[in-house]
Amino acid sequence: MSTDFSVEDKLGLLENTIDYFWTQFAGIVVLLMQLGFAFLEGGCVRYKNMQSIMIKVYLNTCIAVICWWLVGYGICMGSGKFAGTDYYAGSNFAGTKNYSHWVLQTSVGAAANSIVSGGAVERMSIIGYCFLSVAFSSFIYPICAHWTWGGGWLQDLGYIDLAGSGTIHFMSALGALVLTVMLGARKNRWNEKYANEFNPSNTTYICLSTLSLYTCWIFFNAGSTTALSGTMAYAAGRATTNTIIAGASGGLTLMVLHYYKNRNEKSKFSLVMICNGNLAGLVAVTGSCDGIELWAAFVIGILGGLTYWGFGILMHKFKVDDPVDAFPIHGGCGLIGAQFPGWFNTEKGIFYGHGAKQWGIQLLGTVVWLGWSVVLHAVVIFVLKILGLLNVTPEVEEKGLDYAQCGGGGFDYQLLPPILSAGGYENVKSAINQKQNNVPQFGQDNDQQQVL
Amino acid sequence: MSTDFSVEDKLGLLENTIDYFWTQFAGIVVLLMQLGFAFLEGGCVRYKNMQSIMIKVYLNTCIAVICWWLVGYGICMGSGKFAGTDYYAGSNFAGTKNYSHWVLQTSVGAAANSIVSGGAVERMSIIGYCFLSVAFSSFIYPICAHWTWGGGWLQDLGYIDLAGSGTIHFMSALGALVLTVMLGARKNRWNEKYANEFNPSNTTYICLSTLSLYTCWIFFNAGSTTALSGTMAYAAGRATTNTIIAGASGGLTLMVLHYYKNRNEKSKFSLVMICNGNLAGLVAVTGSCDGIELWAAFVIGILGGLTYWGFGILMHKFKVDDPVDAFPIHGGCGLIGAQFPGWFNTEKGIFYGHGAKQWGIQLLGTVVWLGWSVVLHAVVIFVLKILGLLNVTPEVEEKGLDYAQCGGGGFDYQLLPPILSAGGYENVKSAINQKQNNVPQFGQDNDQQQVL
Amino acid sequence: MSTDFSVEDKLGLLENTIDYFWTQFAGIVVLLMQLGFAFLEGGCVRYKNMQSIMIKVYLNTCIAVICWWLVGYGICMGSGKFAGTDYYAGSNFAGTKNYSHWVLQTSVGAAANSIVSGGAVERMSIIGYCFLSVAFSSFIYPICAHWTWGGGWLQDLGYIDLAGSGTIHFMSALGALVLTVMLGARKNRWNEKYANEFNPSNTTYICLSTLSLYTCWIFFNAGSTTALSGTMAYAAGRATTNTIIAGASGGLTLMVLHYYKNRNEKSKFSLVMICNGNLAGLVAVTGSCDGIELWAAFVIGILGGLTYWGFGILMHKFKVDDPVDAFPIHGGCGLIGAQFPGWFNTEKGIFYGHGAKQWGIQLLGTVVWLGWSVVLHAVVIFVLKILGLLNVTPEVEEKGLDYAQCGGGGFDYQLLPPILSAGGYENVKSAINQKQNNVPQFGQDNDQQQVL
Repeated sequence: MSTDFSVEDKLGLLENTIDYFWTQFAGIVVLLMQLGFAFLEGGCVRYKNMQSIMIKVYLNTCIAVICWWLVGYGICMGSGKFAGTDYYAGSNFAGTKNYSHWVLQTSVGAAANSIVSGGAVERMSIIGYCFLSVAFSSFIYPICAHWTWGGGWLQDLGYIDLAGSGTIHFMSALGALVLTVMLGARKNRWNEKYANEFNPSNTTYICLSTLSLYTCWIFFNAGSTTALSGTMAYAAGRATTNTIIAGASGGLTLMVLHYYKNRNEKSKFSLVMICNGNLAGLVAVTGSCDGIELWAAFVIGILGGLTYWGFGILMHKFKVDDPVDAFPIHGGCGLIGAQFPGWFNTEKGIFYGHGAKQWGIQLLGTVVWLGWSVVLHAVVIFVLKILGLLNVTPEVEEKGLDYAQCGGGGFDYQLLPPILSAGGYENVKSAINQKQNNVPQFGQDNDQQQVL
Repeated sequence: MSTDFSVEDKLGLLENTIDYFWTQFAGIVVLLMQLGFAFLEGGCVRYKNMQSIMIKVYLNTCIAVICWWLVGYGICMGSGKFAGTDYYAGSNFAGTKNYSHWVLQTSVGAAANSIVSGGAVERMSIIGYCFLSVAFSSFIYPICAHWTWGGGWLQDLGYIDLAGSGTIHFMSALGALVLTVMLGARKNRWNEKYANEFNPSNTTYICLSTLSLYTCWIFFNAGSTTALSGTMAYAAGRATTNTIIAGASGGLTLMVLHYYKNRNEKSKFSLVMICNGNLAGLVAVTGSCDGIELWAAFVIGILGGLTYWGFGILMHKFKVDDPVDAFPIHGGCGLIGAQFPGWFNTEKGIFYGHGAKQWGIQLLGTVVWLGWSVVLHAVVIFVLKILGLLNVTPEVEEKGLDYAQCGGGGFDYQLLPPILSAGGYENVKSAINQKQNNVPQFGQDNDQQQVL
Repeated sequence: MSTDFSVEDKLGLLENTIDYFWTQFAGIVVLLMQLGFAFLEGGCVRYKNMQSIMIKVYLNTCIAVICWWLVGYGICMGSGKFAGTDYYAGSNFAGTKNYSHWVLQTSVGAAANSIVSGGAVERMSIIGYCFLSVAFSSFIYPICAHWTWGGGWLQDLGYIDLAGSGTIHFMSALGALVLTVMLGARKNRWNEKYANEFNPSNTTYICLSTLSLYTCWIFFNAGSTTALSGTMAYAAGRATTNTIIAGASGGLTLMVLHYYKNRNEKSKFSLVMICNGNLAGLVAVTGSCDGIELWAAFVIGILGGLTYWGFGILMHKFKVDDPVDAFPIHGGCGLIGAQFPGWFNTEKGIFYGHGAKQWGIQLLGTVVWLGWSVVLHAVVIFVLKILGLLNVTPEVEEKGLDYAQCGGGGFDYQLLPPILSAGGYENVKSAINQKQNNVPQFGQDNDQQQVL
């Protein structure tokens, strides 16, 4: 390091270095959450759509990166009340904190986009989903991010949402909800006879996903402090601790709820419920985690678990087909998580005698996300519908997107050598089908994806 | 950062920041080891129990977090010779190193708890396992941690165990051993006719697990220095390097041993053996890794591999059914790993001419873990037995916990579309069973876990 | 920290700490790439070879660690024009940056070794592969690393290759190419009737692999700056941002190319193509990522994608059986990636008006890698051939290395309880085989790997 710098200068540089490193580092780890989303959704859907949903998550990752380079970061972090106007296409990055902040904001934006993908599984056109991702990553979400963290009007009002219970989870899950409603339910979804067919196809993938999301989520929340120097290390430490606790109490809450409801059944325990409860607690604590005490994180985890459970019942009651529980988890728990800074924040919350003003601001933000997300998503998705880019055809849905459009399933072909040696599925199927009953077949072909 | 601080103050803060960051950061990564344990054990057990063991690991993760928040951290890091009395339920955390140390200690505690779960697979009640986890995370392990790292009496005596070869691995594996002995062997485990049935069901999951554990383990060991500032970066660097080397030499040792023994068989090579050898080397170096030279790490990896191999033979000889090799890996290699600071430590070890005093202290610690762990685990497990919370019924064991209690398998249902289209397992089974031979069926039903 | 140090000293130590930490930290994360390589190759090969390729990757990881401790690091980082002569077997590490640099260089060396393994799948002797790994990690690659980063002659000339587009990817992929050519194509590989058999067996494993490689790759590239203090944080930030962007544009490029070519087929979309395009972009930007602007990274990702596509077509045209596309991805994109510092580097590149001198140096380096790698690999592999350690026998290849030498498949045995309850594969096969057609059987046995 040059000797031209004074000790004070060097110290300031070092503080910057640590802050940039922390922010950028957390951002890189948050990018790994895309693996979590791919396997969470892949584990939930039927095998005939496992490859296609991973394609969607992978594509929205790449699309988010390009959109955030071109316009998203400029909108989010540039100056302006409604939307930022600097930093488009990487301009003015050299020698600033923008590299590190771009990494964090972009990864976070990709994660938000993946939440929306939860509504798209098993029946949405892949091309249509790409267009929706472009819209989401170019303006729907970056503008929300600007309002909350980039110097926008909500931030000016004092809205608190550290890592986005409202801005990211609630807002994005509303997109998933609008999408899933406009796509309509999957065929036979609400026909009791076919209920088993819609159970998660691979619970180990869901476990892989949520245990890795748990770790990445901690960096997501703690990294959103974007600083460690000075006394900021304590804020990041508190965010870390609270995130871990809320995730754990959410997981245990769902374990208990599920056990109590099914205590006389053969499905007393459910790995998926524990995983989703874990996520529910994480979503619920995301907005408030740096400003609350540890007992509050424990309570928030329980409230998150209960909210997920309640919204899940509502979705079933109103027959909304949300294949990966995107809205109960991210929407329901994001909704309450956006309120918690108004309740539990040690310096602003109702529970600490600071009145309801902060909660009022949080409610305002919540209403804003509701209106913004529903309207914009509905418009974009309606345009896709007009263009014929929303639903796949009933034949493609029946066959599965993997077999109809992606050249083969995620990993069912060739799985068992005897099946291959017997000439593939078709032969096995007909060998078995002498006992064919009234469960519908969904076709599959031997032609697989071509590697080149 | 405020200008009220002097340069000296700022520098001190910055050193703290780096130390807290390192500790907390390593702690977060160690939490990811739960994914490793879930897939290691999931890959070892039969498919009919894959979901249930992942449930156990997930639950002990959540339970460890809550217990360490309420009492564990207070016992471990509070002041007192026998057990700490401060910091219960997150008290007195604000503005201290406690956030970062809580994260590390809690993640480490969750990992220790997962080692015990190795004894519980395929036949232990899930509810009973939860109670055992509460006991383990509330007092069995935190007290050991206090004695070693929290200012307890063993630490005062000079006991060295950086990241817990003795305190964590040996102690916890003794718990797994007591558990597996008191549960008894799985049905048909020692009947040669059924030997193949007990082979690992998914070696790729085991590979996924150990390659990710390898990386996390490095952070576990190096992070246990809990400091990087000043000259501590070198200690962390040495711990890192030695951990990598010992893991590699352990893996190669088992590759060679297995090859030599099976050189004329069709199973000359074994992925599982390499994975377990890798773990064996890691366990063996865990206690001494910051204080030894690189050649010693190489030797320790080999000794770890040999020890694992030897204990594995003993377990088979005495027909102890340890389904995931928890005791040979964590117990055997933890046992020797606890001695190595007395042998190889450059400032205290016999090999460097410092006499046997340090080894004496290490032996004392080892005996303490043996007595403490066996007695406490035996008592707790005996109480569970009396309460009827130890073994599942023979019917549940036969059917598999997944099918009997968890609503379905980890990922076998719906796996192959033709099987689903043929009406599910039952039909496939009867279509196939014309050739039914004397291998016992283990039933499965079409009812799957309900998502809500 | 001792009070003997002045503020200046402490500050210098702290800067060192941060630099060492960054380097070592990135190195540990890069080790996790071995998981990515194991699952990338495991997902590409037929099920009958999934365990064996993971064995190869695991072994080359362990071998690289031991070789880099004994000689690799000394050759790479010691002083000398042709090869370093210090630091063998960990000598002179104490109190230096060598611990942290050893970790990074060793992990990087293990990754390079895994690239070569791509040529070895499905037909190479495991023992033979071990010898090749020893050669690769002992001198073939460390000497290249010395020339580029360790003070060797190419570095003196001004060759730029931050994280090794040329030195690692191109050089290693040439090794894979020589290996795959000398091994010959897999049986029936170019017989159209069997084309489907050679499709990737598990696209979800490939997705798992590339999404985790994406994240680790960022640390690989940014960590290769080996410093964060002073103004170096900006270089690492730029490397991070550019790596993310190039990966994304590579993935999208292949999505578009594949869609366009197959727009009228049932395989319009391909998860594997997106994954490989992602990798292609990453390889292409690896050499230049700290010295280019963001738009250049976007362009490089596209060029990487096109290059991968083009080389893929060439490999098919010339019937080179490269089972995991190692050469099109690492070789093709490494080849162009090595040129880009001469084109896009803001301070040296043609596009910034600095003439062709830098490109000339890059071309020289490229020619050196070509000659060095082809000759050395050919010699070593030829020796293996003479010793009978190259190809497995046709019987072993037919049966699959897993079934012939590793005691069983990666996860096909016991997969479906009804199959086990029907007496295993053999019975299922004969029950099904009444419809046996002209697709060849590949046998499997019930004997599985023995755990001990």
